[in-house]
Amino acid sequence: MRYVTFSTTGDPTPRLGVALGDRVIDLQIVASAVGAEGLPSALLDLIRSGPAAWRRTADMVDRSRSRLGGAGFPVREIRWHPPIPRLPKNVFCVGRNFVGHAAEGARARGVALKLPQVPMYFTKAPTAVVGPYDDVPWHRSATQQVDWEAELGVVIGLAGCNIRREAALEHVFGYTIVNDVTARDLQDLHGQFFKGKSLDGSCPVGPLVVTSDEFGDPHAKDITLRVNGVVKQRGNTRDMIFRIDVLIESLSHGLTLEPGDLIATGTPDGVGFARTPPEFLQEGDVMETEVEGIGTMRNRIVARD
Amino acid sequence: MRYVTFSTTGDPTPRLGVALGDRVIDLQIVASAVGAEGLPSALLDLIRSGPAAWRRTADMVDRSRSRLGGAGFPVREIRWHPPIPRLPKNVFCVGRNFVGHAAEGARARGVALKLPQVPMYFTKAPTAVVGPYDDVPWHRSATQQVDWEAELGVVIGLAGCNIRREAALEHVFGYTIVNDVTARDLQDLHGQFFKGKSLDGSCPVGPLVVTSDEFGDPHAKDITLRVNGVVKQRGNTRDMIFRIDVLIESLSHGLTLEPGDLIATGTPDGVGFARTPPEFLQEGDVMETEVEGIGTMRNRIVARD
Repeated sequence: MRYVTFSTTGDPTPRLGVALGDRVIDLQIVASAVGAEGLPSALLDLIRSGPAAWRRTADMVDRSRSRLGGAGFPVREIRWHPPIPRLPKNVFCVGRNFVGHAAEGARARGVALKLPQVPMYFTKAPTAVVGPYDDVPWHRSATQQVDWEAELGVVIGLAGCNIRREAALEHVFGYTIVNDVTARDLQDLHGQFFKGKSLDGSCPVGPLVVTSDEFGDPHAKDITLRVNGVVKQRGNTRDMIFRIDVLIESLSHGLTLEPGDLIATGTPDGVGFARTPPEFLQEGDVMETEVEGIGTMRNRIVARD
Repeated sequence: MRYVTFSTTGDPTPRLGVALGDRVIDLQIVASAVGAEGLPSALLDLIRSGPAAWRRTADMVDRSRSRLGGAGFPVREIRWHPPIPRLPKNVFCVGRNFVGHAAEGARARGVALKLPQVPMYFTKAPTAVVGPYDDVPWHRSATQQVDWEAELGVVIGLAGCNIRREAALEHVFGYTIVNDVTARDLQDLHGQFFKGKSLDGSCPVGPLVVTSDEFGDPHAKDITLRVNGVVKQRGNTRDMIFRIDVLIESLSHGLTLEPGDLIATGTPDGVGFARTPPEFLQEGDVMETEVEGIGTMRNRIVARD
């Protein structure tokens, strides 16, 4: 399934839909057409309902597919929201999870390259999350160095603590895209990453969540980021230093993961601060963040005082 | 007001109460006694209801005070929960906010003392929060270095972004105690603080929230931590490098704070890893974390595999 949280001009309430081709179908409409009841109208509620509800929902959509051809809304007409508009906690993020990015960062900072021996975790506040086509504010009084980081996002489906590597992917509900927009000056200034990673609007997520069964191998997906049409990052999830099963095992060691948790798995090389000369986002710049098999987000930088 | 989230043997649902002397009164009971309606039964809901609701609630309790002498439950008979059992996001924390603690940390790590020029922010997962008298698990397979950090906690009442220093304390609902229990080995190993700060149970909060009007000057409060009755930390909030108004101004710069957000404002010196020889918590150890004007938490270390 390809789950979307969307609203329309006629009904501005964000609600759960499925993307079928170039149309988005309101899941409540599918449900009432087939007489199904009690279907969650928010993705987080569906995730929390557990695997039996996930299967029932998928079965319902599959059975209705032939009748749904012209139903719903053309994707061009909907408003896209973050798949989970309000996350249950901060986004879990992984620093320096691609050799190329770790190397460019060391070079830019003039320090020796030291690959992490264990994953480096930090977080982004849930107030930073915006939709896949929303503007990203540049808080000009706070930062002069707004940078991009395209990443594959993992959405947890099943709660767990001390999850073993072998079982880790069974805890994944699906995958999405995260642009870990970073105020590079604040990331350095404050000693820990958090503040430079958590400004309002600095976490575009979307455009949708592709369930694990449909996504296939998460370690064979191209990640691309363009600024104003120019490719800045081009990587592949096969090059993660710590793969998703290892990340889940390590993160959940002594720490309970919950349904709806979002893990941003790290960015490949090509970020702005490590370029020669360094590049930072300017008013009006448009970032396109693409992960193969999910889609492309498009976010414009809008200056704010 | 001194707000408590509690339950009883007869009614295990956590609910909002006020502490009056050595008794805790269920706010719903006060409300029905005076015919008040629509009063929130959870502290987070009350905080989100805004200042008019805070005043109405306080007035109601004040007017009923004489009649409430023997009402409610003796504090010894209730179960204490974290004041906000599920925070709306990760706890905001401030690293190295006392000169003594920054100095002992530098000494223990064998590096030069460099006081932070701006606050150092990191977070603790909301899944780490436990009540003021709950056991704190020692996840033995994850860490060998469980350490204590007694801190004053600030509970945000009014949302805001770019809050100015002069207005910052108006955004505070009240104050509580946080023990920022830390897996010292994981804090170092993972490069960023987050993982070593976020193990399940590593964030006792409570025992209650004292509203700003009742708490008085937040920069003149003793902070004390004892392990098995022996004083380990003894500091005063007047020695914060960055005071609460400065923290709120800095943290909210480009980042929206929300009602119910919790900020742990940093710990004084006397933590375990910086002692000679280093001390870490062991099975059965009891931490008492006290902040003047709020109370004392008591948490026992219980080993878990």
